[in-house]
Amino acid sequence: MPQLDSNQLWERFKKYYTEFPSINLSLDISRMDFTEKFIEEMRPLLAKAFKAMDELEAGAIANPDENRMVGHYWLRNSDLAPTPEIKAAIDETLADIKAFTAKVHAGEINGADGKFEHFLVIGIGGSALGPQFVAKALTQPGKDRMTPWFIDNTDPDGIDQIKEKLGNLLGKTLVIVISKSGGTKETRNGMLEIQAAYEEAGLSFSDHAVAVTGEDSNLDQVATAGGWIQRFPMWDWVGGRTSETSAVGLLPAALQGFEIDEFLRGAAACDEVNRSDSFEKNPAAQLAAMWYYSGDGHGKKDMVILPYKDRLELFSKYLQQLIMESIGKELDLDGNVVNQGIAVYGNKGSTDQHAYVQQLREGVNNFFVTFIRVLTDRNGFSMEVEEGITTGNYLDGFYQGTRKALYENNRESITINISTIDGFNTGVLIALYERAVGYYSSMINVNAYHQPGVEAGKKAAGEIIELQQKIVGFLRKNAETEYSIEDLASGIDVESSREDIFQICQCLTENPSTGIVSNESESIDSTRFKSK
Amino acid sequence: MPQLDSNQLWERFKKYYTEFPSINLSLDISRMDFTEKFIEEMRPLLAKAFKAMDELEAGAIANPDENRMVGHYWLRNSDLAPTPEIKAAIDETLADIKAFTAKVHAGEINGADGKFEHFLVIGIGGSALGPQFVAKALTQPGKDRMTPWFIDNTDPDGIDQIKEKLGNLLGKTLVIVISKSGGTKETRNGMLEIQAAYEEAGLSFSDHAVAVTGEDSNLDQVATAGGWIQRFPMWDWVGGRTSETSAVGLLPAALQGFEIDEFLRGAAACDEVNRSDSFEKNPAAQLAAMWYYSGDGHGKKDMVILPYKDRLELFSKYLQQLIMESIGKELDLDGNVVNQGIAVYGNKGSTDQHAYVQQLREGVNNFFVTFIRVLTDRNGFSMEVEEGITTGNYLDGFYQGTRKALYENNRESITINISTIDGFNTGVLIALYERAVGYYSSMINVNAYHQPGVEAGKKAAGEIIELQQKIVGFLRKNAETEYSIEDLASGIDVESSREDIFQICQCLTENPSTGIVSNESESIDSTRFKSK
Repeated sequence: MPQLDSNQLWERFKKYYTEFPSINLSLDISRMDFTEKFIEEMRPLLAKAFKAMDELEAGAIANPDENRMVGHYWLRNSDLAPTPEIKAAIDETLADIKAFTAKVHAGEINGADGKFEHFLVIGIGGSALGPQFVAKALTQPGKDRMTPWFIDNTDPDGIDQIKEKLGNLLGKTLVIVISKSGGTKETRNGMLEIQAAYEEAGLSFSDHAVAVTGEDSNLDQVATAGGWIQRFPMWDWVGGRTSETSAVGLLPAALQGFEIDEFLRGAAACDEVNRSDSFEKNPAAQLAAMWYYSGDGHGKKDMVILPYKDRLELFSKYLQQLIMESIGKELDLDGNVVNQGIAVYGNKGSTDQHAYVQQLREGVNNFFVTFIRVLTDRNGFSMEVEEGITTGNYLDGFYQGTRKALYENNRESITINISTIDGFNTGVLIALYERAVGYYSSMINVNAYHQPGVEAGKKAAGEIIELQQKIVGFLRKNAETEYSIEDLASGIDVESSREDIFQICQCLTENPSTGIVSNESESIDSTRFKSK
Repeated sequence: MPQLDSNQLWERFKKYYTEFPSINLSLDISRMDFTEKFIEEMRPLLAKAFKAMDELEAGAIANPDENRMVGHYWLRNSDLAPTPEIKAAIDETLADIKAFTAKVHAGEINGADGKFEHFLVIGIGGSALGPQFVAKALTQPGKDRMTPWFIDNTDPDGIDQIKEKLGNLLGKTLVIVISKSGGTKETRNGMLEIQAAYEEAGLSFSDHAVAVTGEDSNLDQVATAGGWIQRFPMWDWVGGRTSETSAVGLLPAALQGFEIDEFLRGAAACDEVNRSDSFEKNPAAQLAAMWYYSGDGHGKKDMVILPYKDRLELFSKYLQQLIMESIGKELDLDGNVVNQGIAVYGNKGSTDQHAYVQQLREGVNNFFVTFIRVLTDRNGFSMEVEEGITTGNYLDGFYQGTRKALYENNRESITINISTIDGFNTGVLIALYERAVGYYSSMINVNAYHQPGVEAGKKAAGEIIELQQKIVGFLRKNAETEYSIEDLASGIDVESSREDIFQICQCLTENPSTGIVSNESESIDSTRFKSK
């Protein structure tokens, strides 16, 4: 598109800047260089996406290969639920979360050392990213009702750091173990390590633990058998990456003291706006169409998320999962190999202006930016840092300057304007992107609601774990005998990869508690391993 | 490259897995599908890069358009400094940092409320990312000598959160203001806001503040005039993004209680290994060559950084700046338009396996992964989560499984193996990537040591700030009179963009303290603004 002068840009801005008063948000797509013709070409694809979404909301099987409904929209408007049972489950769970939170805040449900002042979420991926994002987005330092902590990995050292920080606080800490399937190893491991910490401290873990999981899952059975404080349900019609408006997100948010009704109201209001079948009146459709435009429907450009507000720093991580796990697929719904996806990254402005904006402005033009602009500076008074100018004026000045500097070099951007970050707007942002992902996945004809690619890594990891058990068993059975990689391979399982055996031994010898050692050696072939 | 069977992969692994004992690191490039022929083609380019690096280390003007030397390598081996004056400056500054830190730890230098238990770094980009990365990488909860805090943006709400958290602690908090140029607005703003907080608390800011900045910079003059506790120098031959081994990184690290000598020793040892003129013996050269291979010398693939260790979570942010700001350039050294760069993103494993690894495995193949694998689980005992299996075994199993699952689908990866995360290894990692960036920039013939693209955004932001001052001045002079965007444009400056004026007014009206209000309106053209 030819460079436009400032008057032409002003007209384009007025044409493609849209306010959505009911969700307190405006969307500016004027700096994406699409044409009216492109929009016309998108309308049939969007019509298809609108229809698919209507069916999904009505309870269609939107996740064919897992034969599941996809109902995260019902979570904020249970009247939409396809059956009375589902509506009741949603309403009762919300009531349970509020009742439980009230008892915790009132000190009616306590830990061994009295009132719960902290909570520790143990979860990963869809069971951590949403709660982490919202905890930071809505925190009111000094006013939060409880302090949130997270274990979102199976890193022993990372777990030790949390254990150390919570050392004397375990008796005032509520542990929330979140796993939809109830079988996630990382979460199981974190739970076992924290359970052991409670036992070492002479405290009953069960009296400090709640579970958020699917009915009758492993975790659900552990919590039942252990007599945990309470269990909150996950349902097979809620995907992990779209579970922030379920108990997964609502329980931590409520405990921290946030207005979850406002959060749900924002998400519901955003869903409502996004049910319009008009491109012009539907912000999620506009986003999805812009993604399609930018990457030619094949993710040819990365999506850089630049919120100009510290509170939103984790939003790009949240969107990485929501978008990449949903649309990053090998096959489309007809079984064609399409290798779809959009790479998402970003942190916050104007901080990142001093990091990678140099490349964005001048370097490889393989991206489009989504700015998230928050118009309210802060609560309360702002000092002037220059005549008539505040710190917040600079923040917005840097947003405007960066957007302009990028566009001057033909780097395109979208801007989402919101007035402030509160429960309502946070619900809006989450619902907006959930819907945009749904529309975009229909436009490119992929299943947004499964993640077959994740299984391969888990399966391979499981085989490594099994192989390690064999190796350790073999070496211990033949203690003090030295084995090369070749010896080990033939000793335990000629079929398994030498490299796997080497990688496992490499790790074992670095961890003294295993009792596995190796000789100093010049080469891999001359390295010998033994159990002491 | 055709799929290799496990025996062929084992042979390729043994060929392209290299241990570097002096830096306690091994590098595995066996899962990048380059050929021997490619390496041979790279040797002349690498020879050029080695020569350029030798000249740089000898004090050549490596940053031509800023006419500067580039000497971050001297910081960890001052004997390499090109002049006795530079060597003395490095040695004296290091001695000053140690002496200052000793006095702070001993309580000889105190705040109003006694011993300094906290420090607050105010800086952005190269003056924050390194300190933030190292603070998290080396923290020992419960053992750190001081608690680090950061203001790395000009977000008033973000600053308010830090003010709230430090509310009663200001008298025990040492403020470290870091700006090489001394003129960075975000840093200046944060400093002014925190200075005001000290004054509101009836405390002397000067008695709690130190500066790290260039001699005679604005900040240096402010600190001198204000009688701040102490000033530490930055030099024009140290770039912000390569300043972690200068006072910028060393002062916060020392205060937190880290062994900065070990950190410097690691960086120096890594530089030494990377001075080899042999591809096989030079890990930085191997990295640079792999970047070139992956992106065809034009950044065609993104670099996904996946450290399997919570401590390294900020490494990808650190590398985003180091790599993207260094090589993301429009022009090469001969003035040709090249639009170079490599997009860098990532967080940590196995967490990200539950986020975007779905797309990495199945989706658009526009990336290569760099795994950072840490072989030591933790300090001390590990419980078993299954028969003979620990939490750490799972972490490494997920690394191995993910690497394998990606490669099965022709997704390439590099693995950096290190035994543990300590001061030495952290210095190694930083030096390794600094050198790889230097080599790669020579290979693609760009200036790695300037950032011309950053200026455009700053300049545009400055114009927005000036325009806002005009708008506010005009509206206040004509208080209670309503103006459309068109009226304002002609009222203050017919040349300026209507859109800029609208964006500024949009922000002003959302912040009551400005006294600027607008009417409820259907369209931008019918919106009127006035000062109350």
